[in-house]
Amino acid sequence: MLRKFAPLALTNTLKSVETIRLALAQVNPTVGDFSGNVDVCINAVKNAAQKGADVVLLPEMVIPGYPMDDLALRPSFQEASAKAIQDLATKLASHNLGHVLVIAGYLRGTDNADAVKLGVPRGAPMNSAAIIHEGKIHGHYNKHHLPNYGVFDEFRHFVPGDELVVVRAFGSDMAIAICEDLWQDGGPVSRVKATGASLLLVLNGSPYERNKDDVRLKLVQKRAKEANAALAYVNMVGGQDDLVFDGDSVVITASGEVVARAAQFEEEILIVDIPARKISNPQISGAKLIEITGSGSSEKPEIAKRIRKQTDDYAELYSALVLSLKDYVAKNGFKSVLFGLSGGIDSALVAAISIDALGADKVFAVSLPSEYSSEHSKSDAKEMADRTGINFRTVPIAPMVKSYLDELGFTGLAEENLQARVRGTTLMGISNQEGHLVLATGNKSELSVGYSTIYGDAVGGFAPIKDVPKVDVWGLAKWRNEKAKLEGKNPPIPEDSITKAPSAELRPGQKDSDSLPDYELLDAILLQYVEFDRSSEEIIAMGFPSEVVIKTLQLTDRAEYKRRQYPPGPKVSIKAFGRERRLPMTNKWRES
Amino acid sequence: MLRKFAPLALTNTLKSVETIRLALAQVNPTVGDFSGNVDVCINAVKNAAQKGADVVLLPEMVIPGYPMDDLALRPSFQEASAKAIQDLATKLASHNLGHVLVIAGYLRGTDNADAVKLGVPRGAPMNSAAIIHEGKIHGHYNKHHLPNYGVFDEFRHFVPGDELVVVRAFGSDMAIAICEDLWQDGGPVSRVKATGASLLLVLNGSPYERNKDDVRLKLVQKRAKEANAALAYVNMVGGQDDLVFDGDSVVITASGEVVARAAQFEEEILIVDIPARKISNPQISGAKLIEITGSGSSEKPEIAKRIRKQTDDYAELYSALVLSLKDYVAKNGFKSVLFGLSGGIDSALVAAISIDALGADKVFAVSLPSEYSSEHSKSDAKEMADRTGINFRTVPIAPMVKSYLDELGFTGLAEENLQARVRGTTLMGISNQEGHLVLATGNKSELSVGYSTIYGDAVGGFAPIKDVPKVDVWGLAKWRNEKAKLEGKNPPIPEDSITKAPSAELRPGQKDSDSLPDYELLDAILLQYVEFDRSSEEIIAMGFPSEVVIKTLQLTDRAEYKRRQYPPGPKVSIKAFGRERRLPMTNKWRES
Repeated sequence: MLRKFAPLALTNTLKSVETIRLALAQVNPTVGDFSGNVDVCINAVKNAAQKGADVVLLPEMVIPGYPMDDLALRPSFQEASAKAIQDLATKLASHNLGHVLVIAGYLRGTDNADAVKLGVPRGAPMNSAAIIHEGKIHGHYNKHHLPNYGVFDEFRHFVPGDELVVVRAFGSDMAIAICEDLWQDGGPVSRVKATGASLLLVLNGSPYERNKDDVRLKLVQKRAKEANAALAYVNMVGGQDDLVFDGDSVVITASGEVVARAAQFEEEILIVDIPARKISNPQISGAKLIEITGSGSSEKPEIAKRIRKQTDDYAELYSALVLSLKDYVAKNGFKSVLFGLSGGIDSALVAAISIDALGADKVFAVSLPSEYSSEHSKSDAKEMADRTGINFRTVPIAPMVKSYLDELGFTGLAEENLQARVRGTTLMGISNQEGHLVLATGNKSELSVGYSTIYGDAVGGFAPIKDVPKVDVWGLAKWRNEKAKLEGKNPPIPEDSITKAPSAELRPGQKDSDSLPDYELLDAILLQYVEFDRSSEEIIAMGFPSEVVIKTLQLTDRAEYKRRQYPPGPKVSIKAFGRERRLPMTNKWRES
Repeated sequence: MLRKFAPLALTNTLKSVETIRLALAQVNPTVGDFSGNVDVCINAVKNAAQKGADVVLLPEMVIPGYPMDDLALRPSFQEASAKAIQDLATKLASHNLGHVLVIAGYLRGTDNADAVKLGVPRGAPMNSAAIIHEGKIHGHYNKHHLPNYGVFDEFRHFVPGDELVVVRAFGSDMAIAICEDLWQDGGPVSRVKATGASLLLVLNGSPYERNKDDVRLKLVQKRAKEANAALAYVNMVGGQDDLVFDGDSVVITASGEVVARAAQFEEEILIVDIPARKISNPQISGAKLIEITGSGSSEKPEIAKRIRKQTDDYAELYSALVLSLKDYVAKNGFKSVLFGLSGGIDSALVAAISIDALGADKVFAVSLPSEYSSEHSKSDAKEMADRTGINFRTVPIAPMVKSYLDELGFTGLAEENLQARVRGTTLMGISNQEGHLVLATGNKSELSVGYSTIYGDAVGGFAPIKDVPKVDVWGLAKWRNEKAKLEGKNPPIPEDSITKAPSAELRPGQKDSDSLPDYELLDAILLQYVEFDRSSEEIIAMGFPSEVVIKTLQLTDRAEYKRRQYPPGPKVSIKAFGRERRLPMTNKWRES
């Protein structure tokens, strides 16, 4: 076995004082499930201890789950968090796991009157890491840097810490940081080198976005060098409403070499041996020293080096969408999902994601043809069901549509939207009758320009691909089919769903291209506007046709009210609608 | 005319150097409407100048409108704001209004690299007041305290200022503060006394909530004494999505006496004469001094003392709801509203509010009876229409409901919700056909416990009473009818709509009381839970029946997903759902 890092060949009985065996517990907590999360932690520590871990590092806020939004400010929730971390300490000891040093993130209430000055209500808590050993909490590190941009509102919820903490245990000095502390220059990490700590332990709740793993890797390499310490970065995994955490826990040497890296989108206990630097100064300056007495694990079975393979963008993105849906369903007590399967590419991709998240038997698809539905739409929907074995039924909407038209005589857009709303009402009724979670199948391009019917195709409790532009919907569909082929399986998505021109089929011969620019062009413009906040002038100056730019931006601005009522779905881009891009509806500002 | 404050009897020609004539311009800007907002400011200054004002104080962020959320971070929006404030200065001079000292709030871009450290992106702007005289911007005051709680996210958007500013003009020293600066102890106001300024000018964007005017009055009295200065507090007026600004501008002497107070919920130019304290120190310490040369207005017509009468709670609340709806409609380019008029109290109150906001001819109500609708429901709806002259039609939903049931055989809850969704689809169709804004008529009690059908009665672009508990829906209805009687008019709301037991009428003989506790009890529990964040233990300890408390809290927790997709509506309570109470949907935390 190749082991670049550990200087000694460890056997399964020899206890080495020169290394620490560290476990990064990449686990999946649930917001508010204190007893469940304590169990998650205990199981992780048990697993790690069996592999000889001396230290187990758990993610940021693993005890309350993350992000818990305004629950953080509720006194009863803070008390429950305090009780749960104490429970964890007590139970670890009673499970004969007390000898393991455990560092776990939790919500720590405070009486800090400074909270008020910071604009946070009195009693506002801290984002803390508890240092647990032999049934006791020996101290805390409190997060210094509170992100308050993008999807984060931590100035609203937490009081910042200002103390650097070094834990001395098993012959090694270990500094602690939490997530954003790592991202800000001049933060606590810049003070680690002076302490002489050989290891920097970083607890994270860092949501996935595309290509973020590459950014993270560079960051941790930079910080490890800056701290002159090996760096262990543990991140949670799992879906929480509109965020999905990807794990991607990693260990880096002080010189920036990757020595271990865990999976994305899966729970994993990543084990690694870290050489302890000789402790030169019994006292350390500029940090609070917490000394732990004990000898760690006595059994050290051999461990394999683990560095996950890099995956390509679509593999990673697809996994994010699958996990996000899977966790929304499971954590909210649903058993199955339901959606309209039109034969088009969006609902086909949602079907594939649902199957991979839950299994085909938990997936219920409904073909809802109207008089404008093409034969290929109906047959493509049926074919997808046949290929995958999902539950499938057909409910023609003509009788319901006719009943409204007879009474109300809707025409034009009102008639088009009516069809979508009859479909929405049908799906919601089946959901009420049978108990499935309804999924909205819209993509980010549609959501941007408002090319959807509110209370029609926009109904649902969750919207798995709302942050995926149309070009990537096609890309993911092709990728998923290719993957099946490589595995010798039948590709789930009918080829025709991928190749045909997209259409809402709400009037005869309608095509998306009647109302919208080509999706390649549309998505390129939307990327500049929505994700990079560029002005119309700047986008036009990049060479995009000005008429198309102006129309796209106007449509996007005017659709804010629809987005406000759209179901939640996972952020995967660098700027997602909803939690991340927050705009007024009443807004006369127009870029053009 | 009694004038307690002005030491000199002013005539319409005598220019007194011992007083400054101050105008508080309580105006109604629109987010993003830079040219419109500049015009609003110019008109206010023109009006004030005609009344001899030397100084015109405009609200916080009057130029871009407020709150503009993430528009604040868009470079093109910041540039537009900078251009607009310069336009205002130039145009005031060209309208022969340059002699008036104008202080106006705007969004001021900055290159401050510290922004990044503060967790705000580089280029983040400041919440500023520009000091304008004779066509030029002479300086700025930048807000120190950025609220980041409740409905506010100012740490996300702005870089704080740290400089105290005193403007010396017309023989008087005037300090400046912006909104939250007044609410925080130890802020810039605490440093005003040392400057010797005789006047503290405070620009505000302070949203209405019930009883806040009383809180504000005590606050400004306290701060005036602390600053040893007269205090002029100007607040904007108008609706902006889920906030409504109430004005309530006020002027207080250094000893805490109210000398002028403007209306709530109406634009007003409040004029008052303020005695100038003799400037003792040519240099002032602890503040930036901005000296303005000029003599102010030469014509000083006599002005009447103006202190608005206190109104009762329901009068104030009703006005808030009316203005909020009126502005949402107008600022978003709608001409009319549409909603289902059931004969019940909620839709009756929404009808009354709509009539008062827009006029009966702009109000379109639809009776949507089902087979379970009682005769009194149909007749009460009709009677309301007859009393008020709103546009009224009846669309029985039986044919549409039957068309679904024939195809899909829904029963139980699915059948109940179907009726609500057929109504929703009908209203949205009429809206698409005719162009009205659809209103959701649900109240806060229903929204709390999830007693509504998503995509059914919850459809709409705006929800006028979503933050009003059921007991206050009745209270407002009675108040509105009483008001009509006092004015010798026909009360708009049928007595029977007020007195009968509430029912959703989705199954035979259904009453709200079958599923929910008595509304008096329900609302009292919800107040403790939703608004005061009390735990189930605490609420039970207050004497509420534990079973009802536990059931109410459970229902409330489980309905978060419905609230997430509910239309926006005005915050009027101390904690509104949506912008103010931010909770995860995926959340296993239960109080009980």
